[in-house]
Amino acid sequence: MNNFIYDIPTRVYFGENQLGNLGPELSRFGKRVLLCYGGGSIKKTGLYDKVVAEIKNAGLELFELSGIDPNPRVSSVNAGADICKKEHIDVLLAVGGGSVIDCTKYIGAAAYYDGDAWDILLQKVPVEKCLPVITVLTLSATGSEMDAAGVISNPETKDKIGLIFPPMQPKVSFLDPTNTYTVSPYQTACGAADILSHIIEVYFNVNQDLQMLDGVMEVLMKTVIKYAPLAMKEPDNYEARANLMWASSWAINGFVNGGKRQAWSCHPMEHELSAFYDITHGLGLAILTPRWLAYTLNETTVSKFYQFGVNVFGIDAALPPMEVAHKSIELLSEFLFKTLGLKSTLTEIGIDDANFTVMAKKAVTGGTMHAFQPLAAEDIEKIFRMCQVK
Amino acid sequence: MNNFIYDIPTRVYFGENQLGNLGPELSRFGKRVLLCYGGGSIKKTGLYDKVVAEIKNAGLELFELSGIDPNPRVSSVNAGADICKKEHIDVLLAVGGGSVIDCTKYIGAAAYYDGDAWDILLQKVPVEKCLPVITVLTLSATGSEMDAAGVISNPETKDKIGLIFPPMQPKVSFLDPTNTYTVSPYQTACGAADILSHIIEVYFNVNQDLQMLDGVMEVLMKTVIKYAPLAMKEPDNYEARANLMWASSWAINGFVNGGKRQAWSCHPMEHELSAFYDITHGLGLAILTPRWLAYTLNETTVSKFYQFGVNVFGIDAALPPMEVAHKSIELLSEFLFKTLGLKSTLTEIGIDDANFTVMAKKAVTGGTMHAFQPLAAEDIEKIFRMCQVK
Repeated sequence: MNNFIYDIPTRVYFGENQLGNLGPELSRFGKRVLLCYGGGSIKKTGLYDKVVAEIKNAGLELFELSGIDPNPRVSSVNAGADICKKEHIDVLLAVGGGSVIDCTKYIGAAAYYDGDAWDILLQKVPVEKCLPVITVLTLSATGSEMDAAGVISNPETKDKIGLIFPPMQPKVSFLDPTNTYTVSPYQTACGAADILSHIIEVYFNVNQDLQMLDGVMEVLMKTVIKYAPLAMKEPDNYEARANLMWASSWAINGFVNGGKRQAWSCHPMEHELSAFYDITHGLGLAILTPRWLAYTLNETTVSKFYQFGVNVFGIDAALPPMEVAHKSIELLSEFLFKTLGLKSTLTEIGIDDANFTVMAKKAVTGGTMHAFQPLAAEDIEKIFRMCQVK
Repeated sequence: MNNFIYDIPTRVYFGENQLGNLGPELSRFGKRVLLCYGGGSIKKTGLYDKVVAEIKNAGLELFELSGIDPNPRVSSVNAGADICKKEHIDVLLAVGGGSVIDCTKYIGAAAYYDGDAWDILLQKVPVEKCLPVITVLTLSATGSEMDAAGVISNPETKDKIGLIFPPMQPKVSFLDPTNTYTVSPYQTACGAADILSHIIEVYFNVNQDLQMLDGVMEVLMKTVIKYAPLAMKEPDNYEARANLMWASSWAINGFVNGGKRQAWSCHPMEHELSAFYDITHGLGLAILTPRWLAYTLNETTVSKFYQFGVNVFGIDAALPPMEVAHKSIELLSEFLFKTLGLKSTLTEIGIDDANFTVMAKKAVTGGTMHAFQPLAAEDIEKIFRMCQVK
């Protein structure tokens, strides 16, 4: 059993109408606030006005960076860092989903660096400091609201890099399930696939540490499987949105890892897909995950699939393990592609095999040789091919 | 669904041989360390020497308070606070179980108060500051290593009071399962009963908030049921000790509450038993819990018992709910009194009905009227009587 350090200091205000706490929380860190957001959906929903009112009421000075893209770009990080330096920003407020929060984290780090922020992603410079980040979450998916990770894309080099730097951990996050009522069924489905993938990447692990955490992961997966379809059908179902939201944070804030050390598999592969084709992260993960599972299933790994099938999908424990394993992959596929209604192949979303070889080579640099099943570039290319229409 | 604030900033070093981090962590807060411990078992196990070596290696100045009792007394709090004031202590280091940690927390609070520390327990003075507390845990039970609560006894008044003050939250805790290898089977059993009780007090709740947290609580209960007997049988089973240890922290650090607001029932009752008779907390809880459950079971509450029976004890879901409910209480009793081997009645541990009326009256001041089933003093007296040999 591996040792680990548990350290999740983010304070979370969970529930409706908690924004009254935003002003005091921002004020702990200073007077000058940079509000970071995306394409303006928060203006349509009225959340922008609410947040700005709280900032003004608290007597704080407001600066803005808008237009942060899904798969956020290093150009946004540089633009935000420039504002921080020029305007002597004290605290960052990210209002949005994982892309906005990820970008804001790197803005906070890049504010202390004078060169191109991409140097941080290339690990040419360490991240020892970060401006304090506070978040108001609008999408249940990446868990960025409660972890120290972030993923940034560089369209020029077709690179998408995700790293973890403890100083980037949000100080405070506001999780109000009603802020996700306007998330479309499709984006809700993609978010659910993302949450599931975060858990599956850890659950399928060679380190059988702390069994209680396997139980917690099974609960989180069952939570997503139960509530994502409900949230798609009834967008303003508070219970469904609340359970999905809290599950998204706990899927990836580090708690379920507890010493289970190993590289992830589907995320490095998906990062190549979205770096090359700018697809939605959760959709890419949905397409990849069942194929990756099928590719890694063998006599050695079958026991984990058996546990997954019995405990998450309720498959009869008396069946032969290999049968349970195959059935668990089928049921996961059925959930992703029928219940959630996501497209099931790369072909359907316009991705052919033109870049499979180069993407596979880049994906292995993410450490996939140290994953649940070691994956070389050839393996990854095969998995990409499994995702095509036959 | 109720709103809530999640805020658990304690950093945890989990696993073996992590004490190398103790010196640097203490040093973050200053040079002058007050080491607090109990009756000296940490000297027998060698843990004392290891801790002192780390303190000396870090160039810190060491002060000591020993002799903190199980059911820690306000006299120890006052003694510790006196040392803090006289020696200008910067940081407190609790090495022990819940009693030592609870006492140390109040020492940290009382260090900023010039009167009798009992005033803090009587809530005559607020706790706005606390010296930083670092813990090295030696018993999996109370969860004090990761929460802001503590219980102190006053033998003169026969009072035992538990309160929560956020400044008392430990900054850092060292959870090394091997430090619990020397815990006797009996104390392991009492600890397991304590952990179970913490979860049961929250699980049996009228607020059906965030179903995922019910799932997490079921996992934690199953973890205790699986690993406590194993730890009793094989005291140096790392896996068993590790799972129990992490479950003890997560049973009561606040995560599973998530807006489930209601007063506890068995803890206020047990605090009277141990205030009057100085019994082991977990043993008192074990005796009380199944009787309290039996007393609260009715047509309105049965659905929660049904969920408990099916999900925790695997009782056939097709049985009538009331049958499942009764069976769940039977199986819990069997676990506590047969598997863990704890005494099952107050009579057997030398407690007669002499003080039932006065204890019941004192217990209701803990807020039991706002519990899962409102409990007046008469109800509590009846539950005490249910705990006698018939």
